[in-house]
Amino acid sequence: MPRYAFKIEYDGGPFAGWQRQADQPSVQGAVEAALAKLEPGPHTIAAAGRTDAGVHATGQVAHADLTKDWDPFRLSEALNYHLRPAPVAILACARVEDEFHSRFSAQERRYLFRLVQRRAPATHDRGLVWQVLNPLDIEAMREGAAHLIGHHDFTTFRSTMCQSNSPVKTLDEIRIESLDIPHGREVRFHLRARSFLHNQVRSIVGTLERVGAGSWPPERMGEALAARDRAACGPVCPPQGLYLSAVGYPSDPFA
Amino acid sequence: MPRYAFKIEYDGGPFAGWQRQADQPSVQGAVEAALAKLEPGPHTIAAAGRTDAGVHATGQVAHADLTKDWDPFRLSEALNYHLRPAPVAILACARVEDEFHSRFSAQERRYLFRLVQRRAPATHDRGLVWQVLNPLDIEAMREGAAHLIGHHDFTTFRSTMCQSNSPVKTLDEIRIESLDIPHGREVRFHLRARSFLHNQVRSIVGTLERVGAGSWPPERMGEALAARDRAACGPVCPPQGLYLSAVGYPSDPFA
Repeated sequence: MPRYAFKIEYDGGPFAGWQRQADQPSVQGAVEAALAKLEPGPHTIAAAGRTDAGVHATGQVAHADLTKDWDPFRLSEALNYHLRPAPVAILACARVEDEFHSRFSAQERRYLFRLVQRRAPATHDRGLVWQVLNPLDIEAMREGAAHLIGHHDFTTFRSTMCQSNSPVKTLDEIRIESLDIPHGREVRFHLRARSFLHNQVRSIVGTLERVGAGSWPPERMGEALAARDRAACGPVCPPQGLYLSAVGYPSDPFA
Repeated sequence: MPRYAFKIEYDGGPFAGWQRQADQPSVQGAVEAALAKLEPGPHTIAAAGRTDAGVHATGQVAHADLTKDWDPFRLSEALNYHLRPAPVAILACARVEDEFHSRFSAQERRYLFRLVQRRAPATHDRGLVWQVLNPLDIEAMREGAAHLIGHHDFTTFRSTMCQSNSPVKTLDEIRIESLDIPHGREVRFHLRARSFLHNQVRSIVGTLERVGAGSWPPERMGEALAARDRAACGPVCPPQGLYLSAVGYPSDPFA
């Protein structure tokens, strides 16, 4: 059976997350239902990142085995047709080797977190950003974030529900971009690692917001990390600002 | 009665347009209802641009007369509170002279039209852009647009329902910006004039898309303009890509 990889974009708002659920809408369920319109199912599609409820993607990668020898472009067009009106889009599709696995072959994951700081409520970006009302000190957040870069035990910054065998991960980058927007500021956190723990990005960004607001001195990020204690974490920020933006492989299946 | 000016952002999707309607939701109706929570009504709020159903704003300007002497910041905060959950936000508020009129004092209006060209359906931008599937020739659109700059009779590019006394307007600028987006392109049309005719922006952008697609040679824009005949216009594009982005006054009331 030929294996296909898919690059997928979705608005996480209406979904209980990536993972298929018996009684709630999921992104996986939506894509599998669209596949079943093309070939008799059941189908199972595996993703690089099992995003939580409300979390978005602009570059999720998943794979599935099909029976027919599909032209990848026609396959993506047919899936997009059957996915409507769900806010899920197949951006690219490629035939891949049988050894390719969206999750286990992945060498790098990138997340974007969009935070908007302004007084007036979000309108066009509602559900797509985390809004805070008060100004943030960007330099203090950058200073705080620097404590987390590298190979560490991230117990403080992972959910108690996390199923990863080890809390030790290497965080390669936290880049904090600050954009002027009318009557406010958008702060974009770009995080990159081989893999992330459950709720790691939201735990980090929520804690950095406390640094930006002046409630935490930047060095407290390092102390929280060293504590290796979930209780040392700041507030976990809400899911609607988070995007799985890219997954990296030894060779790009969509190139 | 003190007069206040408001800078307003809204998602036009759920509204039948700016203008108050007896039986349908309108942006004007939403703002007037919020004002009535602060001071007994009825209130009438006048806007610089009466946007159509589905058209957005990031910089609409309106004014209203109130009884009390409000602190402008507190007034905007109170209105935003009462506007929830409608996707309407007061970005700024200012006390203005009695002679200030949001519509008649305006010297300039700016519109943005967002067009996205890609195969996969829009997800996060759904309702916020006009999507087309096939590539567009940006240079051809710029060449076509150049024919419209200046003082002209725009009968071809105005709705037959337009109530303006004269079809003669001066179009100061059409700037066409082209942005790479993953698996596609976003084209942003920036238009600037003292005032616009009804459906003028959507008539121009819809016709320019035909030029970009190669169906119209660029010089046909000039011929269509010279015809001064609505039948010479190309297709009028849909409202969801259109934003009233700024209104200019002799002195900025919000400065």
